[in-house]
Amino acid sequence: MPKSVDRPEQRRRIGAALLRLAAERGLDQVSVRTVAVASGRSAGAVQKYFRTKEDMLVFAAELAGERVEERMALVDTGLPLRRALRELVLTTLPLDEERRAEAAAQLAFAAQAAHHPRLAAIRRQVDRDVRDALTQWLQAAGCPGPQATADAVIALSDGLALRMLYTPAEHPSLLQALDRALDALTPHEPPAA
Amino acid sequence: MPKSVDRPEQRRRIGAALLRLAAERGLDQVSVRTVAVASGRSAGAVQKYFRTKEDMLVFAAELAGERVEERMALVDTGLPLRRALRELVLTTLPLDEERRAEAAAQLAFAAQAAHHPRLAAIRRQVDRDVRDALTQWLQAAGCPGPQATADAVIALSDGLALRMLYTPAEHPSLLQALDRALDALTPHEPPAA
Repeated sequence: MPKSVDRPEQRRRIGAALLRLAAERGLDQVSVRTVAVASGRSAGAVQKYFRTKEDMLVFAAELAGERVEERMALVDTGLPLRRALRELVLTTLPLDEERRAEAAAQLAFAAQAAHHPRLAAIRRQVDRDVRDALTQWLQAAGCPGPQATADAVIALSDGLALRMLYTPAEHPSLLQALDRALDALTPHEPPAA
Repeated sequence: MPKSVDRPEQRRRIGAALLRLAAERGLDQVSVRTVAVASGRSAGAVQKYFRTKEDMLVFAAELAGERVEERMALVDTGLPLRRALRELVLTTLPLDEERRAEAAAQLAFAAQAAHHPRLAAIRRQVDRDVRDALTQWLQAAGCPGPQATADAVIALSDGLALRMLYTPAEHPSLLQALDRALDALTPHEPPAA
């Protein structure tokens, strides 16, 4: 581990190793020891950056939340609404290795949040940020019930990602379900010229 | 533990204790030892019914799958489609203690299925059964794209339940999202007389 890398960057690297481990093996396999191995450090070196497993988990959940918002920022909001929503949901679905890792970590944290107040608070903040941004898109496009529609799209996206993680053979039919729901939820737009 | 209770019933009681534990504290807290305590047995007594933690988990996942199908059978399919779908989804949402426990266990298994082939196979079978039944309801009601709509309703239901588990304050607005999505996904029906 190069000494020249500063403390915030070291913490991010350890957090990223935790997210990889959660994605590959599940959150129940995460401990100071396993994260140390996954990040090429000793347990003692990890504990210089995170006092407890709990602190490390919370930091990784925040990192995962930032990634959601970064992905969201990549979607071109100049696209017609239906296409922009589809692009956004596709960034969250486990359709390749990178997105699979991302979705597995996100959903493991979401399921754990039911029993973990600090993780729940982070998830709630991320959900609110995504909902507010989506509500604005929907409102600008004249979609009825923009906030309820935003929450429906978030639920649809989480539910599809959850099922796709253990049902790779159904990816094509689950993408049809996404299209069916987006068709129903968005106002009809004239075909692109 | 009464000796008169037969082996299948003993297994069901242990499985039910595992589901309660998963709901209250998360799947990562499940072990032969903790399930033994939760079911008022010794670890040795639990191991007379399940050789390994893995066998016990798989049995509990099957039990959880049966409960989904039992709940589904309680919905009056003579109701208009929109109402029947709403009733069905409401049985899966954590809106009281009983459904909270049920949803927490179901979603913990779903998240774990991403890393666990035997749990994944059970979840896939339950999803297929629910989808097939829903597709029939939708088809009978003349809903366009019945299978894709069924998958969208399942995803919506899972996604809403996941978020409701860590966001109790948002239950009312998430129920609005459910209504918004069901309005969009179902053909318009004449108002009830």
